[in-house]
Amino acid sequence: MIEEEPADVIYLDYAAATPLANEVLKAMAPYWSERFYNPSAPYALARNVRADYEAARARLAHVVGGRPGNVTLTAGATEANNLALASVEGHVLACATEHESVLERCVNGGGRVVPVTKDGTIDLNVLKTMLTDDVELVSVGLANGEIGTIQPVREVASLVRKERMRRLESGETTPLLLHTDSSQAAGYVSVNVSSLGVDLMTLSAAKVYGPKQVGMLWHADGIALRSLVQGGGQEGGIRSGTENVAGVIGFACALELAERLRSKEVRRLRKLTSLLRGLIAEGVSDVVFSGPTQEGRRLPGLVHASFPEADARRLVIALERRGVCVGTGSACAASRMRTSHVLKAIEMSEEVAQGSLRLSLGRATSEDDVRRAATAIVECVCEERVRSAKRRERA
Amino acid sequence: MIEEEPADVIYLDYAAATPLANEVLKAMAPYWSERFYNPSAPYALARNVRADYEAARARLAHVVGGRPGNVTLTAGATEANNLALASVEGHVLACATEHESVLERCVNGGGRVVPVTKDGTIDLNVLKTMLTDDVELVSVGLANGEIGTIQPVREVASLVRKERMRRLESGETTPLLLHTDSSQAAGYVSVNVSSLGVDLMTLSAAKVYGPKQVGMLWHADGIALRSLVQGGGQEGGIRSGTENVAGVIGFACALELAERLRSKEVRRLRKLTSLLRGLIAEGVSDVVFSGPTQEGRRLPGLVHASFPEADARRLVIALERRGVCVGTGSACAASRMRTSHVLKAIEMSEEVAQGSLRLSLGRATSEDDVRRAATAIVECVCEERVRSAKRRERA
Repeated sequence: MIEEEPADVIYLDYAAATPLANEVLKAMAPYWSERFYNPSAPYALARNVRADYEAARARLAHVVGGRPGNVTLTAGATEANNLALASVEGHVLACATEHESVLERCVNGGGRVVPVTKDGTIDLNVLKTMLTDDVELVSVGLANGEIGTIQPVREVASLVRKERMRRLESGETTPLLLHTDSSQAAGYVSVNVSSLGVDLMTLSAAKVYGPKQVGMLWHADGIALRSLVQGGGQEGGIRSGTENVAGVIGFACALELAERLRSKEVRRLRKLTSLLRGLIAEGVSDVVFSGPTQEGRRLPGLVHASFPEADARRLVIALERRGVCVGTGSACAASRMRTSHVLKAIEMSEEVAQGSLRLSLGRATSEDDVRRAATAIVECVCEERVRSAKRRERA
Repeated sequence: MIEEEPADVIYLDYAAATPLANEVLKAMAPYWSERFYNPSAPYALARNVRADYEAARARLAHVVGGRPGNVTLTAGATEANNLALASVEGHVLACATEHESVLERCVNGGGRVVPVTKDGTIDLNVLKTMLTDDVELVSVGLANGEIGTIQPVREVASLVRKERMRRLESGETTPLLLHTDSSQAAGYVSVNVSSLGVDLMTLSAAKVYGPKQVGMLWHADGIALRSLVQGGGQEGGIRSGTENVAGVIGFACALELAERLRSKEVRRLRKLTSLLRGLIAEGVSDVVFSGPTQEGRRLPGLVHASFPEADARRLVIALERRGVCVGTGSACAASRMRTSHVLKAIEMSEEVAQGSLRLSLGRATSEDDVRRAATAIVECVCEERVRSAKRRERA
């Protein structure tokens, strides 16, 4: 079935998609053809499926430190982000490096974009001045999936709390919520809603070795979510549609597993990405690594490397010939072949941006993979530079 | 894993949920942990996944006799129905027996409900008078999932065409679209959009032995769908979110299989439901069967039987003890324990309605199952009646 994939392919695009973990697949399997019952049906076999589904919701809630009743299951992170942002009607502030599903509402639905510093961190001083009395929601992703920046969400939460207090004291009734999209962070950073101090949190199964198009939105007590899809009234009336039982059970298993493996994986991946950066820098002296330099402030498995004067799409093809799969940034943006809004936000020059690769490591990545990938990257960049120099000469 | 399900359970609730067909499971399997790539990623392995996904879309389009570009993949039929109804802003007419995902928009978003006759068929004469110049969309499900009525969608299409012509001739510019939710019909009735004469059609994978929370909306050329969820711009910008590759490939396989088995299954199920009706009527003389009496005008595998003076929920429990799983109507409504809007629409008295069972047969149902189920149903109804008579005496 997978004849096109040689066994020795080195996959370095875990931030775009993760394979289903074996444990997850095993957890989902009984719900395909055996426990396939509609959880809303009245007989015990179906009620058992309902119980399993609700148990999965409770497990997800437990991982984020919330209550099951505050977890809404969705068909992925994009829908969860949309649901979060639809919970307010007024002004929204979003970090400039957020996912399109957040920025779209912010740009087209009444909102402003908060700039980031050169390493992709939200500018807290600017945020402070932008947090005016009409803002109803602030959305800051816990970690950026393109350059790996882990945002100071706790500090944002503290600013939000202060503004709330100010409103309370001055008798203003405009609500103010803090949302974080933790899709790319889960498995690498704690997603405990209390310690983060957020009111809304998005998570995705597809980024934690779970199934695609399964996600969740956690919301704090007292937030009235506004349904995007009406119908049978599932998910407390917020998200109608027969439940994706297998998917949600897979999600619970995947998130628990990611949390269990977290500290070990973080240590392992930090070593590997440190090695990868070192080997690439040795071979290509003018490589530009984006994201924070401080280890604790970036995703452990992600390296964003830009090679000035190289063309990323050519590099992707050349690397693939050598059995290395890498991304060029957000898969969505990549497919539309335009410069990433994240690189624009960190004010990367077009010349540097166009030669950018996103290398994201995962559970199956070994040290040998990293060494082989680094060799291939260095060789491809050098070859590509020679070729483009020749092209320039001819022109 | 399925210790709670005895091997001899007779499942008669296929209209609520179908198990994944083996072929479907096999078709999906490679996309979990092997071809797991993000279809928007730039390397060939991911582009192959994109190609497989688009091939699945083309296969789905082929079954409905449409073009791939007119198929939007969704997370289930509820979302597809919402998407269909969101394509217009003006008045909507929906059949009184439609699914909640259609009625909700109709009732709360500016619309009127078209009554049905006693067998659940849309009243074409009333529809004609209701089809005023402000109506922008008519929604009539191809087959009702509760009492099995197959609607005269072609005749509705003809009325819609006439009204369109009238508007065209009188220079009116209000558009008029015909939507059909074919979720319950697929596999039993042709879902060819041209021969039905519809502009929008919803289909569900979960009702044709495919995965849950996978669906599609087919739309005719020239219809501008309005996105419910924004983000990465997948599905032509209409339905953002990383694609459910395995789910959609499973859906294509499931719908093709359902179409291939259709004529044989229709014949087989007609015989079985005819036997079931006969056996029940022999044992319970005052049973009320709902839906059209004419075989060709109702779903072949569905029997809606009401037992006056019995309580459906008690029957469900008693039947389950004898290893027979039956539904009481739409699972969504059932879980909220209220009288079904479908039975209200056909003006069934509360007394009869409360003793209603929906018996829906499927691929695994055998003649022996039907005989055993009929015996159990007759016995349970009789016992339940004796018990409720005693309760009334005591009261």
